[in-house]
Amino acid sequence: MNICDLIYKKRNNGKLTEEEIRFAVSSYVSGGVADYQMSAMLMAMFIRGIDKAETFALTKAMVESGKVCDLSRIEGPKIDKHSTGGVGDGTSLVIAPLAACAGIIVPMMAGRSLGHTGGTLDKLESIRGFRVNISETQYKKQLQKLGVAMISQTQNLAPADKKMYALRDVTATVDSIPLIAASIMSKKIAEGADGLVLDVKTGTGAFIQKKEDCEELAKLMVEIGENCSKKMDALITDMSQPLGNCVGNALEVKQAINVLKSTGPKDFTDLVLTLTSRMLILGKVEKDIQRAKARLKKLLNSGAALEKFREIIIAQKGDPRVIDKPDKYLPKAAGKCPLAAKNAGFINSINTREIGLASVLIGAGRTKKEDKIDTGAGFVIYKKLGDYVKKNEPLARMHYNHSKNVEEAKNRFINAYSITENKGSYPPLIYSEIS
Amino acid sequence: MNICDLIYKKRNNGKLTEEEIRFAVSSYVSGGVADYQMSAMLMAMFIRGIDKAETFALTKAMVESGKVCDLSRIEGPKIDKHSTGGVGDGTSLVIAPLAACAGIIVPMMAGRSLGHTGGTLDKLESIRGFRVNISETQYKKQLQKLGVAMISQTQNLAPADKKMYALRDVTATVDSIPLIAASIMSKKIAEGADGLVLDVKTGTGAFIQKKEDCEELAKLMVEIGENCSKKMDALITDMSQPLGNCVGNALEVKQAINVLKSTGPKDFTDLVLTLTSRMLILGKVEKDIQRAKARLKKLLNSGAALEKFREIIIAQKGDPRVIDKPDKYLPKAAGKCPLAAKNAGFINSINTREIGLASVLIGAGRTKKEDKIDTGAGFVIYKKLGDYVKKNEPLARMHYNHSKNVEEAKNRFINAYSITENKGSYPPLIYSEIS
Repeated sequence: MNICDLIYKKRNNGKLTEEEIRFAVSSYVSGGVADYQMSAMLMAMFIRGIDKAETFALTKAMVESGKVCDLSRIEGPKIDKHSTGGVGDGTSLVIAPLAACAGIIVPMMAGRSLGHTGGTLDKLESIRGFRVNISETQYKKQLQKLGVAMISQTQNLAPADKKMYALRDVTATVDSIPLIAASIMSKKIAEGADGLVLDVKTGTGAFIQKKEDCEELAKLMVEIGENCSKKMDALITDMSQPLGNCVGNALEVKQAINVLKSTGPKDFTDLVLTLTSRMLILGKVEKDIQRAKARLKKLLNSGAALEKFREIIIAQKGDPRVIDKPDKYLPKAAGKCPLAAKNAGFINSINTREIGLASVLIGAGRTKKEDKIDTGAGFVIYKKLGDYVKKNEPLARMHYNHSKNVEEAKNRFINAYSITENKGSYPPLIYSEIS
Repeated sequence: MNICDLIYKKRNNGKLTEEEIRFAVSSYVSGGVADYQMSAMLMAMFIRGIDKAETFALTKAMVESGKVCDLSRIEGPKIDKHSTGGVGDGTSLVIAPLAACAGIIVPMMAGRSLGHTGGTLDKLESIRGFRVNISETQYKKQLQKLGVAMISQTQNLAPADKKMYALRDVTATVDSIPLIAASIMSKKIAEGADGLVLDVKTGTGAFIQKKEDCEELAKLMVEIGENCSKKMDALITDMSQPLGNCVGNALEVKQAINVLKSTGPKDFTDLVLTLTSRMLILGKVEKDIQRAKARLKKLLNSGAALEKFREIIIAQKGDPRVIDKPDKYLPKAAGKCPLAAKNAGFINSINTREIGLASVLIGAGRTKKEDKIDTGAGFVIYKKLGDYVKKNEPLARMHYNHSKNVEEAKNRFINAYSITENKGSYPPLIYSEIS
């Protein structure tokens, strides 16, 4: 088999066989196929498209390029949740301990801040001492003991995906639905859970903004998972405004603690309950959504979920005092300033991507992979879609440590809000379920 | 400007501006754009296509990536000829001295054997001592003195094309008409002639076999040249059988000497007269084809063209005795064997590419760039399209030095001939003129 023949075939709109895709991917990882050949192949795949069989084969080839985590010795239903990324979406911080309290094993391998979106690992690391890099043995021990662990991907997990994603990032081949689906699912399948609830974000703060595209992506990911015998569920949820009231790492941890105490924002709590109840159903811990939700609410009210979060923090060497005194033990910002509305009226729309980029400007996210995160920086948001605001009334408060990009961040945040005289209609939190 | 944005634009079917294309090409040569980014761009260009303005810009950018040869101080019309490559096409060996005799300055920078096709430089090097690598000063001196030089491309001539072609070769992006046109024309424009006659080959022995594609390519190359103020002419000519009766380097030199003595094969001689007369017209040395052809015939009959070839050989340090005694002074093959027809009938078609590949097998061409050529090896062909052949009558004679691939070459040659009971209809030598 020759890579040029395969590029030629795909370029001419041919269908690649499973064997051909496996050859291309494994040769790329071993070095027999050069970067410039894989990038030509990816561009041909991007433009010509790949069908379902090719997408399944690509996912499998990427899974097989590394080690698949074997969780079979751990008893209980092993269900993970994955979000395609958004602004203020710290739901994992609540969902992991909450689901674990309800009897789900949550083997969560999370990601970092990327572009305008935040990352669970960065949020967790705003808890002093919290370790996300854990050996596989340690990880499995913790899963056995606590029923939940929240870690960084283990070494050698779908290395082909890592290499191909890095290449796509610099060759304008990222935003292809089948390539995205295969990339996400290869990692999730290699993580070894039995099932996965997908939260596919749509709207101005999502990577893929159009609802139709999100549905296509969600559907394809569900099919890929099922093709690999995973139990799958997917929701399309709203990201046309930040979720909850906080954007920024320590701020989102504090908010998560509030949600775990049943005192968090309604949209955030609703999404947590919806996603976690679906994990319970996938894991056969509950049969219907209403009963699942009721059970989860109890676990929040009783403080059981909060205690589970404390156990996770202790197990992963973090400082558990943040649970009781978040204001004292979480990193803080030296400066605060209000972000005032330019005119009076109703919040009609929010360019949420711009909010995310404004948070990156003050250090809450990364521009480059090597950038260090300022965990104290971020926004506390007072006004969301449909709210009325007076002229010069604060839309939010910015928390910052360095004055460097403060003015630009401020303008970017304020200009992301579109304020109109009349109240409009606003998107629902949850659009549709794909399963 | 950012290369990812440009790849993105082309990928989404956008048109790149001249400035954008110049940025991509010059950054690629300087190293700011990586191979994997250029290969993604080339694949996007391949699939989405590039329009005329983009093709012009690409050609110019590749010309500007290196040095343009300045021939302005040499008086007289400077006209070159370029063929897209074929089997047995040694016409350059005759055209260069012949056109020079008629008052054309022929600044010929020729190529080497590639794939199934032969190369003028390899043929010239079968003349003992012949030097094709000459300094630019020396080259210009020879043009001034003899009116003709036949050399390898000077250093730093369209380096972007060299780098991009090498990349296309290993990423399945060679066979794009605009990319081919820009590649050929960038080199020809950088060579600095005033005009160019293109011989675009069609048929089983051509790189681009379909006549319609050849016409498109020829038309585009003419437009590119004219866009750069070059006088252009192009012919589509037949390559559905080898040209003349010889395939192989020394054999083709001997045949060229015969043509220069007016004793060469008719098809070869006709093509030489047609192409050269068009060079005379482009150079305004003659006004019509008939008069040009009559003049060229005289130059062959008088021996003037042959003497010019002798002068070239002497100037470029070759052994001029080949002119009078080619059999004695050209390399020969140790072994010869007839290639017998498998059945009786008329030669209906010839897979000419297979003839070229058979010649590569016995060392007359290259598989890899580094391969050394066996200049004595090749075929002398007795039977061409429309000829009648008896069973076991020789179609050709194979000349070889090494027994290694002899059997395979023999079979490949014989099987390339399709022999049928009835006489068919055969393609003309010259199809159409694009100018």
